[in-house]
Order: sequence, then C-alpha cells, then structure tokens
Amino acid sequence: MTSKSELPHVVILGGGFGGLSVCKYLNRTRCRITMIDRQNHHLFQPLLYQVATAGLSAPDIAKPIRSLFRKQKNLTVLMDEAVGVDAERKELLLRDKPPLSYDMLVMAVGARTNYFGNDRWEKFAPGLKTIDDARRIRHDLLMAFEHAEHAEDPAERQKLMRTIVVGGGATGVELAGAVAELAKRVLTRDFRNIDTTTAEILLLEVSPRVLGSFSESLSAAATTQLRELGVEVRVSQKILDVREGCVVLEGEEIEAGNVLWGAGVRGTVLSESLGVEMDGSKRIRVNPDCSVPGLENVYAIGDAATLKDAKGVQVPGVSPAAMQMGKYAALQIRRSLRGKESGRPFVYLDKGSMATVGRKRAVADIRGWETTGFLAWLLWLFIHLLFLVGFQKKHLVLVQWIYSYATYSRGSRLITGQDRNFKFAEREKHGAQMIGADLRPKDVHDLKPALAETP
Amino acid sequence: MTSKSELPHVVILGGGFGGLSVCKYLNRTRCRITMIDRQNHHLFQPLLYQVATAGLSAPDIAKPIRSLFRKQKNLTVLMDEAVGVDAERKELLLRDKPPLSYDMLVMAVGARTNYFGNDRWEKFAPGLKTIDDARRIRHDLLMAFEHAEHAEDPAERQKLMRTIVVGGGATGVELAGAVAELAKRVLTRDFRNIDTTTAEILLLEVSPRVLGSFSESLSAAATTQLRELGVEVRVSQKILDVREGCVVLEGEEIEAGNVLWGAGVRGTVLSESLGVEMDGSKRIRVNPDCSVPGLENVYAIGDAATLKDAKGVQVPGVSPAAMQMGKYAALQIRRSLRGKESGRPFVYLDKGSMATVGRKRAVADIRGWETTGFLAWLLWLFIHLLFLVGFQKKHLVLVQWIYSYATYSRGSRLITGQDRNFKFAEREKHGAQMIGADLRPKDVHDLKPALAETP
Repeated sequence: MTSKSELPHVVILGGGFGGLSVCKYLNRTRCRITMIDRQNHHLFQPLLYQVATAGLSAPDIAKPIRSLFRKQKNLTVLMDEAVGVDAERKELLLRDKPPLSYDMLVMAVGARTNYFGNDRWEKFAPGLKTIDDARRIRHDLLMAFEHAEHAEDPAERQKLMRTIVVGGGATGVELAGAVAELAKRVLTRDFRNIDTTTAEILLLEVSPRVLGSFSESLSAAATTQLRELGVEVRVSQKILDVREGCVVLEGEEIEAGNVLWGAGVRGTVLSESLGVEMDGSKRIRVNPDCSVPGLENVYAIGDAATLKDAKGVQVPGVSPAAMQMGKYAALQIRRSLRGKESGRPFVYLDKGSMATVGRKRAVADIRGWETTGFLAWLLWLFIHLLFLVGFQKKHLVLVQWIYSYATYSRGSRLITGQDRNFKFAEREKHGAQMIGADLRPKDVHDLKPALAETP
Repeated sequence: MTSKSELPHVVILGGGFGGLSVCKYLNRTRCRITMIDRQNHHLFQPLLYQVATAGLSAPDIAKPIRSLFRKQKNLTVLMDEAVGVDAERKELLLRDKPPLSYDMLVMAVGARTNYFGNDRWEKFAPGLKTIDDARRIRHDLLMAFEHAEHAEDPAERQKLMRTIVVGGGATGVELAGAVAELAKRVLTRDFRNIDTTTAEILLLEVSPRVLGSFSESLSAAATTQLRELGVEVRVSQKILDVREGCVVLEGEEIEAGNVLWGAGVRGTVLSESLGVEMDGSKRIRVNPDCSVPGLENVYAIGDAATLKDAKGVQVPGVSPAAMQMGKYAALQIRRSLRGKESGRPFVYLDKGSMATVGRKRAVADIRGWETTGFLAWLLWLFIHLLFLVGFQKKHLVLVQWIYSYATYSRGSRLITGQDRNFKFAEREKHGAQMIGADLRPKDVHDLKPALAETP
C-alpha cells in the first residue's frame, strides 16, 4: 500500500469550468490533486455581465471552490497565484508559497482581455473578467448617471449618458443590451434632472456583423433586437485609439461616460512564460491529446489552449469546450498514471450556441435549429438557471429575475469601492495571470457535469 | 404662486435611518428637499455584520436612495460629500460640487468608529460601518483560514484561526457570535489540514459585563449563549495597545489573525468642524427641539446628536431614536416654514431592545418583558425581515436565511478586492465624514415608517 504522500501529485491551475471538470473526473483516481486559483471562488462567468449592470449580486454567481470539492477527499485547494513553471524540476512557482512539485500539471488558466497590442487602453476601457471588474464597471456606470444628474453643460450631460461597448461578440452584445435596459427601463424614474431614456449606447464591431460565430440570419436578428432596445449598432468600425472617455475611429472621435471592452481574449502572462509555441492570441498550441509540446506531463485546456481537433474543427473558447477538454485531460492523466499510452485524440462536440440580448430577446442555434426572440430567451434563461452552480444560487437568482421581470427594477444598484483606480492599480500589479477565462456556455448541454456538486 | 426655485430649500445630510425619516415626513410639505449622501444607497446597518461574516450579499441589505424616493416629487438626491458648513452664508460646502445654499439644514450624518484617541489602531482593528468595511472584513476573515490551511508552524496556524472582537455591545456580540458560527459550523468541511472548530474567538469588553445597556440577567444570558457558540468572553479587559495581529492587555499580549473593532462610535469630522458644543464622543449637544445651538436653522439628529430628552432620558444611539428624531425634526421644520414657534420638546419613546447572538440565540427586552434563546431569536428574525427595506430584499434574505438555517452553509463566502490596504487608504483620504451611523433597531416598532416606500 502506497502512503498518501507517495501518490502521484496532479496540480490543476485555475478553478474555471475547465479546471473544475478535470478535478471532477479525477475524483476516484488514486492521486493527490491540488487545485490552485488566485480567487477562492469559481465564477459563473456567463452571468458576470449581470453583476456589472446591477441585475445580480456578485455572490449569486460565484461559489467557493472549497465548498464545491468539500467531499472530494483526494483534493486540496490552494489559494495562490502561479508565477512560473520550472518544467525541468517539475515545479510550479507561486507568489506567496514555496515552489510546489508536481507529477502532472494542467494549465486551465483561462485568458485575459485582449487589447491587441494597446494595453494602455485597458485603463480607459475595462474588460469584464472578475467580480472586481464587474463591481468596478457597475460603479462607473452608475456614477456616470449620478454625475449627469448634476451636470450644468448639456453636452457634458449627454456625454456622461453615452456608453460605448467595443466588440460585437457575445460579451459585447450582452453588455450593450443590459446597459440599454438599465438606462432606458430601470433608472428612468430615479432622476429629476436627466431623462435616462435619452442615454446612448453604442456597440462598435470591427467586422461587418455582430455575433460573427453565428449564422448571418441570427446575426441580423440580434442586430434588430439590439436596435429595439435602443442600442446603436455600428459594424466595420476600426478602433484607432482609446483615451479617457473617448474612442477614436477613422475620421471621428466619440466621447462617452463609459467605454467597456468586450473585444476578445488572449493567453495569460503565465502561459507566455512557458516559452512554448503559441498562436497570435498567445494561446498554447497543444498536441491532439491536449498535452503541451516539449513539456513533460503538462496539459493545457480551455481558453489557455488552441487546437484543431481530430475532425479538423477549431475548438472554440467557450465553457463547454473547456469542460470537454477538462474531462478529456482527466482521462488522459488516468491512463498515464496507469502507465498506458495516450488514447484517441480530443474531439469537440458542438451541441449549440446562444447569446442573450436582453429581456425577452436572444438568439439560439441548437445544432442547426435556429430560433430568436422570446423563445430563445426562455431557453437561455432556463438553461442558465438549471446549470447555475448550487441550489441556493439558482433559487436566489430565480427570485431576483422574476422580481426584475415583473417590476423592471434592479436590486444591486450599489456604488461601492469609491476609488476608481483601485482595481486598475491592483490589476497592473498582479496582472500576470488572470485565472478564469471568458467562458461562454455555447454548448449548453455540457454545463451540468462540471457544475454539479462532486459526488 | 411661488415658483419652484423660490420654495424654501431643506438640505438633509445623510441617508441613514434619521435622514430618511426627515424626508418621509416632509413629503407633502411645500419645500425643495435635497438629500445628500456619500453613498448612493441606504444601508440596513443592523444586518451589516451578516455581510462581514458571509451570511448575506451586500445588495441584500442596501437600497439606492434614489429608488426609495422615486415618487417623492419635492426631493432631489445628490451623491456627494459635505466637507463644511458656512452657517453665516447658509451654505453647505461639498467635495465635488459648488457650495449649496440652504434655508434649513438637517445634520443626519451619523457617527464613525471610536478608537478613543488611538486612531492608529484603526488600521489593525477595522470597524464595521460601510459595505466596503464589511467586504474588507469578510476578505480578511476568510483569508486567515486560507493562510492557516497552509501554515507550517502550528503556533502560526492557531494564531491565524484566532479572532479578537473588541467591544461587548450589540455590534461586538453579534460579530463574535457570527464569526464563531462561521468557523465552527460553516467552514468545517471545507479544509483538509486545519480543523476550523478549533478556531478561537475572543470577545473583549472593558466594563464588567457585555450588553451593558441590557439588564444583568439578559447580559448573563448573552454571555452563556456566546460561550455555547465557543466564544471566549472576557470582561473588565482594558486594551492598552493594538498592533498588527496583536492586542495588548495588562500583563498579556494576544496574537490573532483578525482583530475587529466594535467598541463605540463618535461624531464625524464634519460635526466637529461646526465649532459647536459637543460631548466627549464628539456628538453635537442639541437643544430640546433638536436644533443646533448658535447655528440658525440647523438641526442635528440621530448619532450625530446627543440629548437628554424632556423626560430626562438620554436618547440612545439607535435607529429607532434616529427615526423618531427625524420625524420630530421634520415637524419642527414644517412649523418653522409656516412661521410658527417650535413645538413641544422631543421625547424619546423606548419600545424595547434586542440583540442577536447567533442561530437560535438572542436576548430581547420589550418594555420590561425579557426573553432569551429561540423565542428572542425568532422575534429578532421576524422583526428584521419585516422591516428590511423593500420587498425584494426581504424575499431574498428570507430565502437565504432559510437555506442557511437548513444547511449551515453560507452563500457569500467570496474573497474579493485583493488589496487589503485599499479601503484603509481610501478611508484615510475621505475619512472626514462617515455618513451612515451605527444604527441599531433597539426600538423595533418604529422601523416601519422610515423604511416603507414613501407614498
């Protein structure tokens, strides 16, 4: 009988959808697992925009990683930040604690917001990755209306009530829709001097259409729905520069109270530090079995990795893909621990995609069956509630949504953390590794296994 | 017919229980009201300790001031910080905006944590006044257990799992009880290396008994209940010094992972700046009609004021008293606007007091009828739910509590805002005025009027 400390040590870096999935499928494997994350909580990222727009409380969409794995005896949770990998010595370098030896390492570190080489824009156009990001955006959005209420100059007032969302992918579409609803439906009766229904929300997309990963008809439907909500959708817009409260386009500068960035993701600094081959977005080019070329016993999954699967399909950066890769990596690790060769290469199973635009507005593509509007929205709502982590959250979120739906009120309109620069300074300091990727439940059927409490 | 801008301007400083009450009772008065607060939300302060100990989400216990007064047409809300009063010119000086003229001013600015002349202790022993305070304490409490889980040295581990609560009033008792429940009931299954039931919680009180404002028998009952929860209650303990992670008593130093301060309140810097007579805790000594001696048309109410009422009773610093004074001040203002002399002096009506110790544990004194344990707790729960601001909150809090009660789980165990020093730095910067007092629903029957939506 091997003693506990002689058991092989599997280290999983990142408690997002991918990392959780690996843990779950190693539940009964004879190994010691250490799950490391900078945060103490798993974040249900697909609903983070609701926190940023005052629809939900942060704790509604996050659950402590420890409590998710309370019953999994072979797993230890460590809250720390990985700052490097010494692949020679098989050690993970941590910010706060001594280096950690591993036998197997899974990089499930996700991605961070991509400013396409213009990192200085981050300060003026925050991305949405963590709860602190969401709270900061909520603070800034609500403060803009507070300032507008007492602005003397009409032009200044209108500027403050203008929000620009950069990026017409699912994140950008959801954010723009939610900001429009906040301004034009929720806040309307709160102010005396301003008419919040005159707030302008601009969605800027560089390509010729929004939701580029969907069909042209769904893309057109989403555009129509956004316009119904009062969002001005502008496609084929190249961003030349972003300054404080200002976006520079070709031949035009648009001033705004808030600029939000939802235009893409790229790999973490930790991924970059590995010195392995990466794609243009700094995602690790993994082998067909999700292992990292050149590094022994290291896997990369989810948004940290890029892969054309065995069927030639580019695996998308969405949560179901991360979960599928997590399960696959767990099975590979089990084979490897038993001394077996790696099995068949990874194949991504696409079960469908959906994006929500606002109340009663969404688009969905379930294996070619396309639907829009109220039905798509009900489907989206149902699936998100169904798979939201933990019973309590589901219940609370349901109550909150029913209430919001009935009253057009939003319960979480709190302005807290007064120092606007706090989060940014913090991010610059620890910005190295943004664990927790922009995971999006495109393939909704796969959400359940990773999110259910482990047995 | 007077035009709108010629109507007398009543400025109310502070959106706590007192300020809200003034607004409510001036609803149909012909005047312009401006309600000013640093925060955009009214905070249900009696439940703030639940946010600090991960029982509730911050948005559950706060509501935007704007939405509370949505329908009150004579009222404007201004989010800003008052930095001074020019009583000669009848102007209020603001941090962000130009000076604001007033005809009547109500100082409902509450109080801030009292370190009794040792302000440097604040850094090591935070008080609990705002949502940011509560989130900071939640962060620090949960982080102490995270660090303990991976501490090598047993003494260090035990230190990290030790929490000291200074002050045996209602705030201290509630905090100590809630921290004990968090450690000994909620977190028990989350960790692998530490046994959180061995966590130590010390409640230090300078006087010979806790809950000094209650009878000796209720005080003894609370002590017993705290001990049942595993809190070490130490009375007659004089604090000589507080350092980082360390409290110095006579002949003893106690190290701890967290030191929390619940030992008293004092007036704000703004109150001090008025140059009027104050008591030892920097509360304004008001006239029997709640007006401030020497300043024309300025009232002070709630925790900002100190008063022996017409029956010789010292008005306590609790929310029902603040609400009663708020109502009284509103009626005085109405008289004054009609050119009448001030009416009968203020009389405080004490309807009862209660303090909760933990799940199924509380003490209550309803006009001399004393009760403890489960019945007192049910009463406490019922009254707090009943009067919590707004329908939605009540509903959500109810769901969360039923769930917590059934499962001993807490939904809000999130560690966010990684920079421990952020809030403190922020507080030092804007520390001048901590609007929103340590309001405590001692007199529960009076909670309703101020909390109900204005008609």
